[in-house]
Amino acid sequence: MTPRIGFVGFGEAAFHISKGLRDAGAPPIIAYDINTHTPGLGERIRKRAAEASVRLVETNQALAGACDIVLSAVTSNQAACAAEQNAGYLTASHLYADLNSVSPALKQAIARTISATGARFVEIAVMAPVPPYGHRVPMLAGGESTAEFSDQLAKFGLRIEVAAREIGVASATKMFRSIVVKGLEALITECVLGASRYNAESRVFDSLAESIPGVNWNELADYMIGRVVVHGERRAREMEEVAATLRALDIEPIMAEAIARRMDWSAQLGLKERFHGDAPRNFREVLVALSKIGAAAD
Amino acid sequence: MTPRIGFVGFGEAAFHISKGLRDAGAPPIIAYDINTHTPGLGERIRKRAAEASVRLVETNQALAGACDIVLSAVTSNQAACAAEQNAGYLTASHLYADLNSVSPALKQAIARTISATGARFVEIAVMAPVPPYGHRVPMLAGGESTAEFSDQLAKFGLRIEVAAREIGVASATKMFRSIVVKGLEALITECVLGASRYNAESRVFDSLAESIPGVNWNELADYMIGRVVVHGERRAREMEEVAATLRALDIEPIMAEAIARRMDWSAQLGLKERFHGDAPRNFREVLVALSKIGAAAD
Repeated sequence: MTPRIGFVGFGEAAFHISKGLRDAGAPPIIAYDINTHTPGLGERIRKRAAEASVRLVETNQALAGACDIVLSAVTSNQAACAAEQNAGYLTASHLYADLNSVSPALKQAIARTISATGARFVEIAVMAPVPPYGHRVPMLAGGESTAEFSDQLAKFGLRIEVAAREIGVASATKMFRSIVVKGLEALITECVLGASRYNAESRVFDSLAESIPGVNWNELADYMIGRVVVHGERRAREMEEVAATLRALDIEPIMAEAIARRMDWSAQLGLKERFHGDAPRNFREVLVALSKIGAAAD
Repeated sequence: MTPRIGFVGFGEAAFHISKGLRDAGAPPIIAYDINTHTPGLGERIRKRAAEASVRLVETNQALAGACDIVLSAVTSNQAACAAEQNAGYLTASHLYADLNSVSPALKQAIARTISATGARFVEIAVMAPVPPYGHRVPMLAGGESTAEFSDQLAKFGLRIEVAAREIGVASATKMFRSIVVKGLEALITECVLGASRYNAESRVFDSLAESIPGVNWNELADYMIGRVVVHGERRAREMEEVAATLRALDIEPIMAEAIARRMDWSAQLGLKERFHGDAPRNFREVLVALSKIGAAAD
C-alpha cells in the first residue's frame, strides 16, 4: 500500500522535497506548519503548498490522522518541541522521521519521545543543501526502522543511505562533516580578508591549487564567501551545536567555536541585508560591501 | 659571470636547495651556520654540507667575503638577527635574499637593515614544503632586484615568480595561504577526533567528496593529520605570526588563532615523540597513539 506522507514544518526543505516527491509520482502530501497564518511567513507557506500540490492542515492532530509517515522539517531549534507536540497523536501505525540538523544527543531524546507513543522513529541527516538536489538530496538514516522508511520512499527517488541501527551516528556524521565544510568557508573568508589588502588573492589561489589540486579555489571562494554572507547566522548556531557535541565527547571544540565566531562576525555586520537576501555573485562584491560598511563606520 | 652563492643557515631548506643547485650545474656553494659546532646539530650540518659539496665557513664575514648572493634560510625567529649580523659585512656588490617565513612587516624591517649597507635585497616566500621539490620549490619574489635574482638563479632551475616591487606582498601571500592550508589541517584533525568516536570517518569523507569533489579526503586526512603531529609546534608559531599580521590590518584573527591553538594541542600532547620524529603513516595510527596517551592519563 502507498503510504500517506505528511510534513511537520513546511519551510524550504519540506517544499523542495514535496515537490520532488509529487513529480516522482507520490500521492498527495499533507503538511502542518505552525506559521501557516503568520503574516508574511504564512503567505509564502501557502503559496509553496499550492505550487507543490500539498494540502495544509490546521493541527498536529489533523496531520497525524491524515498520514502514515510524518517527516519533521522544522527550524532546528524547534525539533524537540515539534516531536512533543506530535507525540500526543502518534500511534503504532506511524513512522516518524526527524530531518532536522540537531546533535546526536537531541536526536536520541527525540527518538525516546516518539518511541514512547508506539510509533517507529527514523533519524535522517540531510547531507547537502536541499534546493539544488530537491528530494534527491543525500540522506543518511539511522534507527531500527530505516529499512521500512527506505522501502516506502526510495521508490520515489529519495537517496537514503543507512548509517547505523543506533540513533545519533547519522547526525554525528553530519555535524563532523560541517566542521570541514563550514570551517573551510570561515578559513577562505579570513584568508581573502587579509590577502585582498595586498591584492594577493589570485596568487594565494594559484598557490593553493599547486598544493591541493582538484579544487578551483577562486570559484570556491566566490561560492563559500557568498554562503557565509547569506547563512552566517544559521551557520553560527549550527557550529555552536557542533561545539557542544564535541565538548560532550571531551574534545575541546577549538575550531568549531572559532567558525561560529567568524560566522557571527558576518551576521553582525549586516552583510546579508546589503544583498537584500540574494547571494553575492562573487567574493569581490562582498569586499566592496565591506568597504562601504567600513566607510560608513568611519 | 657566474655568481658565487652562499647560505646563512644550513638547515633542511638550504641543504635541499644547495643539493639541487649543484646537481643543476651551479658552482660550489658556501654556507655559514651558527650551529656548525653545536653537538648533535653540528654533525648533521657538516654531514649534509659534505653530501651537497657545500663548503662551510666559520663567520658571517667569511661568508660575505666569499660570495655575491647571500640566501638567508635560518629558523624564522632568527631572520632579523641573521640580517643584523650579516649587515656589517655586506657591500654594494651583494644581493641578499631572505627566504624565511616571516611577516610582511618583519620582511620590510629586514629590507631596511640590508639596504642600508648598499646591498640589494630580495624577499622570497617559499610556497611549498622544500623536500619534495628540492631547489625547484615554488618561490614568490618581491623587491626591486627580483629581475637580477631571477637572471642569476633561474638558469639553475629555481622557480621564481615575481609578486611585486614592494617588499611584503610575497610574504603576505604565503601567510594568507597558510590560513587555508594549516586551517584545513586543523579542521580535519578536529573533524576526525569527533567522527572517530562514532566510527563515522568514512561516511564523513564520502559526504565531503560529494560536496567538494576533486579531493581524496581520506588521503588528505592521512597526510594532514600527520603534518599536524610532526610540525604542530612550528605551525602554531607560524599561525601566531599570521594572527599578528591580521591584527595589524585591523582584521580579527579568529581562525588564525584557533589554528595556532589546535596545533599547540598536538604539540603539547607529545604526539610527535610517540612517532620518534617519523610522520604517522595514516590518521588511524594517530588515533591509536592518542588513545594510549588517554589511557596513560587515566
